[in-house]
Amino acid sequence: MATRRIQRTEESRRLLVTAAAELFAEKGYRQTSFIDIAEKAGISRGSIPWHFGNKLGLLEAVLDDRLHAVLTALAPPAGERPSSPLDQITDFIRQPVTRLFITLLAEAVEVDSPIREHYARLHAALRQAVQARIPAEALPAETTPEAFTVLLVGTVIGVHAQWRIAPEAVNLEAVQATIRTLLPASLEQA
Amino acid sequence: MATRRIQRTEESRRLLVTAAAELFAEKGYRQTSFIDIAEKAGISRGSIPWHFGNKLGLLEAVLDDRLHAVLTALAPPAGERPSSPLDQITDFIRQPVTRLFITLLAEAVEVDSPIREHYARLHAALRQAVQARIPAEALPAETTPEAFTVLLVGTVIGVHAQWRIAPEAVNLEAVQATIRTLLPASLEQA
Repeated sequence: MATRRIQRTEESRRLLVTAAAELFAEKGYRQTSFIDIAEKAGISRGSIPWHFGNKLGLLEAVLDDRLHAVLTALAPPAGERPSSPLDQITDFIRQPVTRLFITLLAEAVEVDSPIREHYARLHAALRQAVQARIPAEALPAETTPEAFTVLLVGTVIGVHAQWRIAPEAVNLEAVQATIRTLLPASLEQA
Repeated sequence: MATRRIQRTEESRRLLVTAAAELFAEKGYRQTSFIDIAEKAGISRGSIPWHFGNKLGLLEAVLDDRLHAVLTALAPPAGERPSSPLDQITDFIRQPVTRLFITLLAEAVEVDSPIREHYARLHAALRQAVQARIPAEALPAETTPEAFTVLLVGTVIGVHAQWRIAPEAVNLEAVQATIRTLLPASLEQA
């Protein structure tokens, strides 16, 4: 019985995190209420504080979950030779998860934003994950791994933004081909 | 008398556009009211519909104004040899105007957003302005001017975003140096 209760609890938590992630991406953090989340997840609204404390606790769980998805996508599959790190990283241009980063970004840069600190940790973790996939020795001598990583993460964020706004104006294949042409060939074989 | 009245009218309009641009950048479009704008501009709230029709009309005026500022900054000063187009474009990473693009972006990607179309025109105009400064013959054969422009505008947006969120984690000088190292040297002399 105890095991089944734990399973149900974990299942509820997962459903709430998934619903919240979708709603935050669609409407932003501020505009999303516990009622919206409970309705979408099909779970009683009262269980949200029980699981997450408050709305910031829920945001934290959403960010952790999405970061985990990013890290999993960047990790080479066990026993397999990973595909080019550049392709793996630039593939995030078309990932729905990148939309959440954009929606929350605007609220995070507001004066006295309650979510800024959480959001800053997300960017830092993304950069750390990308930097781990980029061997420093593959970079031109004039660059630093930190600056190169900011550039690569920034490119993914900014190209995704333009594509979300006007998909017909942005040819993602051509942009990814351009990135591969401009970046050092040594990164492809890394 | 008529001339003075016109001057006063143009001055009011300018003050309202400036106040709205600052408030939209700080709080977003939806969260900013006519009362906020009138208070900041020191002008009666009733004059906003008179000048701009409605809030979307005011947004349109703000976007036009900021776009004009971008185009002016990218245009070579009369009679002077312009600085490198790369430096001119990447300098926007630290411009306050870029923050407005980020704040509005989140609202523009929402489902049924009233501002999406206006915002899409802004991105398109930015790309057009950048592409006009980049000579096609300076680009590697494997790239297209369109894809290269999306990449450059995206880089500015995405690096700005990371710097806004955590200025201490982003060394803008090093990122700009990295961009110069990676992009074709032919662009510097363009």
